[in-house]
Amino acid sequence: MEKNWAVQDFYPEELSHCYGCGSKNEHGYQLKTYWEGDETVSRVTPRDYHTAIPGYVYGGFLASIIDCHGTGSAAAAMYRAENRPMDSLPAFRFVTASLQVNYLKPTPIGVELEVRGRIKSINGRKVLVEASVYANGIETVKGEILAVQMPDSFLSK
Amino acid sequence: MEKNWAVQDFYPEELSHCYGCGSKNEHGYQLKTYWEGDETVSRVTPRDYHTAIPGYVYGGFLASIIDCHGTGSAAAAMYRAENRPMDSLPAFRFVTASLQVNYLKPTPIGVELEVRGRIKSINGRKVLVEASVYANGIETVKGEILAVQMPDSFLSK
Repeated sequence: MEKNWAVQDFYPEELSHCYGCGSKNEHGYQLKTYWEGDETVSRVTPRDYHTAIPGYVYGGFLASIIDCHGTGSAAAAMYRAENRPMDSLPAFRFVTASLQVNYLKPTPIGVELEVRGRIKSINGRKVLVEASVYANGIETVKGEILAVQMPDSFLSK
Repeated sequence: MEKNWAVQDFYPEELSHCYGCGSKNEHGYQLKTYWEGDETVSRVTPRDYHTAIPGYVYGGFLASIIDCHGTGSAAAAMYRAENRPMDSLPAFRFVTASLQVNYLKPTPIGVELEVRGRIKSINGRKVLVEASVYANGIETVKGEILAVQMPDSFLSK
């Protein structure tokens, strides 16, 4: 069976230090984002100290995983739009222009969270991604991020 | 000279475990929010691993400090609206209903960041707060949070 690669597996090494999704950031969340059909999916389990009030996940953590899931989804979408594999060059890497997060209900801590994204539009260097967080299969957070392709000057590799 | 207390200094102990602003969360940011005239101010220095790309602060960290600054500002505003000190009971504690963050420019890492908030409106149990992050005096992030007073059942103290 073919390995299902995450888009972050192909981020250039010097752009893999993000606290949310950089494979080289040993302190961070190391989020990984995969295609599942036309949706993008990341799964992550918060640490026990990522609390808001005891028993529930900190809102900043939830905003963070929506953010990184969004930039990862944007990169994945751009490869698809260009009909080329994620290991082809030049690499795509996005930054966040804006982030909107709605907290629908408290997110319980202690379970794996699933972030699912949908590509709303691609417009030049901008990709709009809608994403939701699910805990135990229940949608607890819904967000939208506008991701913008990083200037080429940042991509030396 | 009178001590300038932070609103978080009066959060009930069982509600002081937030990763962003809980004094009891030893892993977290322990954000503290003060009045300066009609603005609220928090100051925080990201750790060196809170990076997005090397040299710049991770967007999730920035969203997180706007989030906690917003809930703290909402509580502070509600005490003022009721014309009572922050150490009076019942305590105010807010959660985030929604968060909007615009990344205006990259935020350099390695310097203390200042978050400044303005109360836009108080409507029953809801407080709308506008907040900006400044690095070296330059506004790099602008956000808005809608904070909602936590249900009384959470406040046993």
